[in-house]
Amino acid sequence: MTNINHSPHTEQHLRSSDVISDVVIGMSDGLTVPFALAAGLSGAVASSSLIVTAGIAEIVAGSIAMGLGGYLAGRTEADHYDSERRREMTEVETVPEREKEEVREVFADMGLSFTLQMAIADELAKDKTKWVDFMMQYELGLDKPDPNRATKSALTIGLSYVVGGLLPLSPYFILARPHDALLYSCGLTLICLFIFGYFKSKVTGQPPISGALKVMLIGALAAAAAFGVARLIQ
Amino acid sequence: MTNINHSPHTEQHLRSSDVISDVVIGMSDGLTVPFALAAGLSGAVASSSLIVTAGIAEIVAGSIAMGLGGYLAGRTEADHYDSERRREMTEVETVPEREKEEVREVFADMGLSFTLQMAIADELAKDKTKWVDFMMQYELGLDKPDPNRATKSALTIGLSYVVGGLLPLSPYFILARPHDALLYSCGLTLICLFIFGYFKSKVTGQPPISGALKVMLIGALAAAAAFGVARLIQ
Repeated sequence: MTNINHSPHTEQHLRSSDVISDVVIGMSDGLTVPFALAAGLSGAVASSSLIVTAGIAEIVAGSIAMGLGGYLAGRTEADHYDSERRREMTEVETVPEREKEEVREVFADMGLSFTLQMAIADELAKDKTKWVDFMMQYELGLDKPDPNRATKSALTIGLSYVVGGLLPLSPYFILARPHDALLYSCGLTLICLFIFGYFKSKVTGQPPISGALKVMLIGALAAAAAFGVARLIQ
Repeated sequence: MTNINHSPHTEQHLRSSDVISDVVIGMSDGLTVPFALAAGLSGAVASSSLIVTAGIAEIVAGSIAMGLGGYLAGRTEADHYDSERRREMTEVETVPEREKEEVREVFADMGLSFTLQMAIADELAKDKTKWVDFMMQYELGLDKPDPNRATKSALTIGLSYVVGGLLPLSPYFILARPHDALLYSCGLTLICLFIFGYFKSKVTGQPPISGALKVMLIGALAAAAAFGVARLIQ
């Protein structure tokens, strides 16, 4: 759910592409939640096999919920864009003066003088496609979505969640006693969270070391809280 | 992680506020993942109390991971805005001609003539604060973030996850046999997912019935898959 929807800054900035954003969304939850769940159960049950079952059920549930959630968000965005575009097209045809007024409002908000607002509105009105494109982007703030975005997004988020979730679970596959597995799982996951946080921060233009520590801290806090609560109610 | 980041359409659209967006983010995962995890474990273990332990561990882990994730995303956004603003302020002072060129590029992309581009750039350059505000919003596409957004976001997402997660888990508190509890949990959760999906779709301007069915379908698929996989590996 992490929002790294940064806009491009052409001067110095690395642009975070949609794929990277989806990997980050899937992996930050995938590394954290199954890790914390397994840690929590380690405080409450005697057998690793049960933790593996719960962990895998969580990974399946989480990857499908997040993947399909990403798919629907992508489809919704595309449908929304299409329906708004059709509406703008109709409005430009039927109520051009009101739409020109809306163009002027965009530039009035920028603080431009009335003379310039009028000149711009008249120039844009000469080409209806360009006019509608302008309204979509600057009045409504909608970018044209990639038609395959929804499917790609679903697969990327889901797979990243699976990969992220299997890492903290792997020691429980091998070691029968949950407390032994928990130690390895903590070590492995904190290292992975650090590496993941480092690259995530690099890509989103944040200071990498402090970003890596923050990501690691979230995972550690979630796991510690889950461990404490599960032990209390066991 | 669901992206309902719609822009306002002043003519007919209900605007989804940040709080609603956070409730949707927390609750869509909260209703789905703990429900699916409990369903998965119902296929694999004999006692409801273990499912309650796992479910609560998951809710604690998930709400902290998502809440803190939301907090950091909000802080990152605010820091990013501040650092970009400082940079633009410096650039407007030190390389005004290059920055004017960048203003012109924004309007060249809109398809405006060179004469208008020049007139706009000259007019904006008269007021440096306005100029920088313009660069932030239209060159970089960054809106000024609410300073309390990060904290509010964290609490709203985390609480929504807890509320969403406790609903599907409630039958397991009461009924000792997981299979009995599973039936009630399915019924209760599918109804809640439908109601949640209905309001979510209303708020984001989508057709409410089909939106409600989609949200319900994601939950059902995630739970069915988790149930099947957990039963296979038990």
